[in-house]
Parts: sequence; C-alpha cells; structure tokens
Amino acid sequence: MGVIVVEVMPKPEILDPQGKAISTALPRLGFEGFTGVRQGKRFELTVDGEVTPEHLDAAAKAAESLLSNPIIEDVISVRELGGEA
Amino acid sequence: MGVIVVEVMPKPEILDPQGKAISTALPRLGFEGFTGVRQGKRFELTVDGEVTPEHLDAAAKAAESLLSNPIIEDVISVRELGGEA
Repeated sequence: MGVIVVEVMPKPEILDPQGKAISTALPRLGFEGFTGVRQGKRFELTVDGEVTPEHLDAAAKAAESLLSNPIIEDVISVRELGGEA
Repeated sequence: MGVIVVEVMPKPEILDPQGKAISTALPRLGFEGFTGVRQGKRFELTVDGEVTPEHLDAAAKAAESLLSNPIIEDVISVRELGGEA
C-alpha cells in the first residue's frame, strides 16, 4: 500500500483565527519563543501497491480541486510518504 | 525567521468522517485509484532567527499538549521546514 501526503495551508495574507488562538495560548501554557502559528490540513491518500507518477498527478489535481479552496488556501506539497517535504 | 512544521493525524483506529467523505467524492470527480483518505492537521510555528533544539523540544511538547488530542490523534512529526518528513 502506497501513501501520498498532501499538505494545504491558508494563504499568508488570509486571517487564520485558529492559528492566532493557538499562538496566544502557547505562552500562557509556558511555551515561549514562538512568534506565530498557522494551521492547515494534512491528507494521506492511500493507493494499492506502489505510488506511481500517475497517482501523484491525480493527487495533485485532486489537491487543487477538492482538498483545498484555491481562493484562501495554497497546496504546499504533494509527495509520497517519506519523500522530501 | 525559522519555521517548525508539526503534523498531526487521527489515530488509525479512529473514525475519520471527513476523510471518508473525501474518499467517496474522489471517484465521482474522476480521480480513480485511491483506496482511502485520512485528514489531519499541519501547523507552522515561526520563531525569531534560526530554529534551535530548544525550539524543537518546546514544539514537540506543545504538539502533545495543545496541538493534538492524544486520545484520538497522533503527532506524526515535528521538524524544521525543509527537514526530513
């Protein structure tokens, strides 16, 4: 079984209330030194057998059209699990 | 500015309705070949200057206590952006 990882983040200019809430909570819980937090999504798409270039191509297209909202999000990476981030 | 990436996924045994919904939608949209989809979270924590081992340590602790729910989620990785996934 092959696994493809798709990572999606909010566009930098987009307000990220969840990230903001976390970044204000961190110092309160004793975690100093972080200047900001952004929260996005991570998907694992499984395929039968090995991951092929065709699988990666389909995953990239699915990332753009189904797994992200192109108006407010960027697809950061589409890679085979264990591949370069 | 350094960036630490934290990746969190639902535990394998946990029902993942969002992932299920996506995996049933993919073939309808013409994306064949995917046997399953799971959806998790991806965080980017920014720090001033370079990422230090202390930053990574604090991020790992924050990941366990704030960025994930240990009952239903696993912290998959805590790494400097660009580092090995």
